[in-house]
Amino acid sequence: MKINLIWAGKTKEQFLLDGIRKYEKLLKPYAHIAVHEIKEEKGTDIQRMVEKEGERILKCRSPYVLLDDKGKHLTSVEFAGFIVKNMPEITFVIGGAYGVSDRVKQGAQDRIALSRMTFTHEMTRLVLLEQLFRAFTIIHKRSYHH
Amino acid sequence: MKINLIWAGKTKEQFLLDGIRKYEKLLKPYAHIAVHEIKEEKGTDIQRMVEKEGERILKCRSPYVLLDDKGKHLTSVEFAGFIVKNMPEITFVIGGAYGVSDRVKQGAQDRIALSRMTFTHEMTRLVLLEQLFRAFTIIHKRSYHH
Repeated sequence: MKINLIWAGKTKEQFLLDGIRKYEKLLKPYAHIAVHEIKEEKGTDIQRMVEKEGERILKCRSPYVLLDDKGKHLTSVEFAGFIVKNMPEITFVIGGAYGVSDRVKQGAQDRIALSRMTFTHEMTRLVLLEQLFRAFTIIHKRSYHH
Repeated sequence: MKINLIWAGKTKEQFLLDGIRKYEKLLKPYAHIAVHEIKEEKGTDIQRMVEKEGERILKCRSPYVLLDDKGKHLTSVEFAGFIVKNMPEITFVIGGAYGVSDRVKQGAQDRIALSRMTFTHEMTRLVLLEQLFRAFTIIHKRSYHH
């Protein structure tokens, strides 16, 4: 299975980067993970930054699933089913520090929420990777200490 | 404000420990965080382990709020309101690798879910601390890059 992850900019928090790398490694036997780090916008004009990043996301890959706290709330088992349904390839988009543009929201094939709570966009990367690993342990009926 | 966190055993994942320490530090201006690491049970008799850890949790501190994926799903703003309502002291319990005993579930003053998804119990510690920090930035109207 191929899993594309699109997000804006490098992961700056070292502890999150360490965690992301750990799960990328754990996922290797199950899926090919391709991270597409689109260029992050800097500045104070948030509307413009979000639009610019949105254009890059839309150019990157389609169809895609947007991580969005207004999206569907799945359990980990339901999320595993969602992965299976989307085999052999799925793309997830995680917005930047200020979220995503309306066009990115409207263009998503699905919107999935990890929580009703707001996570930092970098933490969302880690949580998604951990849930992807969990999904494959569910799909392959492997035990996974939680 | 005083915030007690009760969980079983040390945080073994280094990246999570780094993240937990970061948020403990960030929370210092807002709250006194006291982590109570009760002794973790080892073995194969899961039922017995969960009961034993449950006894220790119940002895530790009361009343307490249980982190539980079957609990109430709050937004970060609602969670901030929940913290304010519980001032000047609140205690959170996070279960171990195999969850918590029925007695711990039944004894909780409230049950709060971070997600419908299952997180590792160590990841739950990090997510809770990040949400506590976020809650105080909401309460004190501080900007917080997400």
